[in-house]
Amino acid sequence: MITTDILIIGAGPTGLFTVFEAGLLKLRCHLIDALPQAGGQCSEIYPKKPIYDIPAYPEILAGDLTDKLMEQIKQFEPGFTLGERAETIEKQEDETFIVTTNKGTKHHAKVVAIAGGLGSFEPRKPPIPNIANFEDKGVEYIIRDPEFYRDKKVVISGGGDSALDWAIFLTDVASSITLIHRRNEFRGALDSVDKVQELKDAGKITMITPAEVKGIVGTDKVTGVSVVQKGGEAFTIETDHFIPLFGLSPKLGPIANWGLEIEKNAIKVNNALDYQTNIPGIYAIGDVNTYPGKLKLILCGFHEATLMCQSAYQRIFLDKKYVMKYTTVGGVDGFDGTRKEAPKAVIKKIE
Amino acid sequence: MITTDILIIGAGPTGLFTVFEAGLLKLRCHLIDALPQAGGQCSEIYPKKPIYDIPAYPEILAGDLTDKLMEQIKQFEPGFTLGERAETIEKQEDETFIVTTNKGTKHHAKVVAIAGGLGSFEPRKPPIPNIANFEDKGVEYIIRDPEFYRDKKVVISGGGDSALDWAIFLTDVASSITLIHRRNEFRGALDSVDKVQELKDAGKITMITPAEVKGIVGTDKVTGVSVVQKGGEAFTIETDHFIPLFGLSPKLGPIANWGLEIEKNAIKVNNALDYQTNIPGIYAIGDVNTYPGKLKLILCGFHEATLMCQSAYQRIFLDKKYVMKYTTVGGVDGFDGTRKEAPKAVIKKIE
Repeated sequence: MITTDILIIGAGPTGLFTVFEAGLLKLRCHLIDALPQAGGQCSEIYPKKPIYDIPAYPEILAGDLTDKLMEQIKQFEPGFTLGERAETIEKQEDETFIVTTNKGTKHHAKVVAIAGGLGSFEPRKPPIPNIANFEDKGVEYIIRDPEFYRDKKVVISGGGDSALDWAIFLTDVASSITLIHRRNEFRGALDSVDKVQELKDAGKITMITPAEVKGIVGTDKVTGVSVVQKGGEAFTIETDHFIPLFGLSPKLGPIANWGLEIEKNAIKVNNALDYQTNIPGIYAIGDVNTYPGKLKLILCGFHEATLMCQSAYQRIFLDKKYVMKYTTVGGVDGFDGTRKEAPKAVIKKIE
Repeated sequence: MITTDILIIGAGPTGLFTVFEAGLLKLRCHLIDALPQAGGQCSEIYPKKPIYDIPAYPEILAGDLTDKLMEQIKQFEPGFTLGERAETIEKQEDETFIVTTNKGTKHHAKVVAIAGGLGSFEPRKPPIPNIANFEDKGVEYIIRDPEFYRDKKVVISGGGDSALDWAIFLTDVASSITLIHRRNEFRGALDSVDKVQELKDAGKITMITPAEVKGIVGTDKVTGVSVVQKGGEAFTIETDHFIPLFGLSPKLGPIANWGLEIEKNAIKVNNALDYQTNIPGIYAIGDVNTYPGKLKLILCGFHEATLMCQSAYQRIFLDKKYVMKYTTVGGVDGFDGTRKEAPKAVIKKIE
């Protein structure tokens, strides 16, 4: 059982910044995210896209935003359960919560903060009749650890950035890479498209276009895929892994069944006070919540996280009032023993 | 008459970021600030102090925060009335506002956003009986333009960073600099104290400590100050300017008389919706406002500014609904003709 003060569901920018604000109040945090790394959409969907509306950043790449936040919260030693989806929640007699993931990992927390963004990103699955039988038996929709493919035969299907970027990356890892797409044209960063062209010309990537995977071949696990090239007959390619990368689509998922008030696929919160949901002790912050005038902006999530932490503090310490100190004045004490503080003024005689 | 869409009172971080969010909605902004430069407290009081709680900045100097915000809003061409204090407001028949400063500058705006921080920073004045007679006649409490002191004799009084830093800066400008402090010890950045020591040793700054200025000498304008050194007799130093730098203290000031609901020296707003005050069309954002759970943090001001701009848009365009576009998707079009946008994905054949 993992125990913490605030369990944060969702490790996107809002969830990450919560760790900082909680840390200032000496509260510890643990984060659960269905994606295999922190950063939410910013890291998974558009790490190389510039964002222009983060205050005091005229421009920052979404991936860099994640990196900066990870650096900012490092001193507060957050825990992570990644690649698992929060599935069920049980309120205990003492008003604490136990949250269990789809893999059975249990988390015990005094307060739960749902910072789930647009929901957990579920991969779009291709309409291949027997594909469900091979999930985690050679079919993966998300690449969690590239090393898993070391010296294996890999077939990737898809025509966007993910398909291009992983095909490029895995040429150095897998024993063979085949890229299958239903069009001849790929949509992605110019760099990536050019690089794949280069790797194809060098014989390091096999391309089959325009074509579709129509079936999986194998008994216990994937041994091949059945491919149909436009206007042609089905043929089989031997492979150890089939990775369809057709994008992710957000789903509120199991959270929708936690008894929370939902409106327009988002969780209603009390924005007049502390972003608490209808269940005391469960907060919702960032894109996952809704209230009058709500804007789904990262900077709003930061504010909501901050006010929510104050409320969580009062809940945990039974209405003890926290006296806020400015970081410029009080500095920041990390749980790891580090201390950041402004250089002190000296008092010195001039003679 | 200066005309604008949103008149922002206070050019601190919250006021500055408002220009960006308004700009995304194609609204123009003009800012008034009593201080001679943008940045509010961050620039005036602690430009060299690190702030640790700006999201995605593990550490940023307050002065750099101002610079980054100025860079971010440049494209939206904000106007500034600096060194003047917003004094009166009149609501027009058409529900617009005219705001007049203490120097008589008039501003006509559709919406007013008070982002006044802790108030306008008023200099602490030393208890010298006749000092009021010489204000702007050789006595200045804030240095607005160093060039004003070119080849003049200057007496500075004070023992903190402002006194030290300006004494250092003006040695290259003024014909003579005298620094008077009631103690021998100065309180400031080590660098500054050491630099003043150096300049004193080089004969470029005359120091008189422990001593106090007890009177101003002159008829129409300052010609000297009367100084008493501890345990000694009063003597007169000839000077063109006397600049007491004893710090600034915030006062809500004339805004307190605008008919706004005030609570604990802050302006009450509707945080459940749009941070509007009790007077429709006047908003209050950042440290100047109060509501249940309010935290006087810069990041909260950013959020409040953002929601306030949406409400201002609806007020100005009569409840026309603005469809928000993400900057990552829609880019940012500056009023100066610049455009920022994410690199577009290419669609390209691989053959």
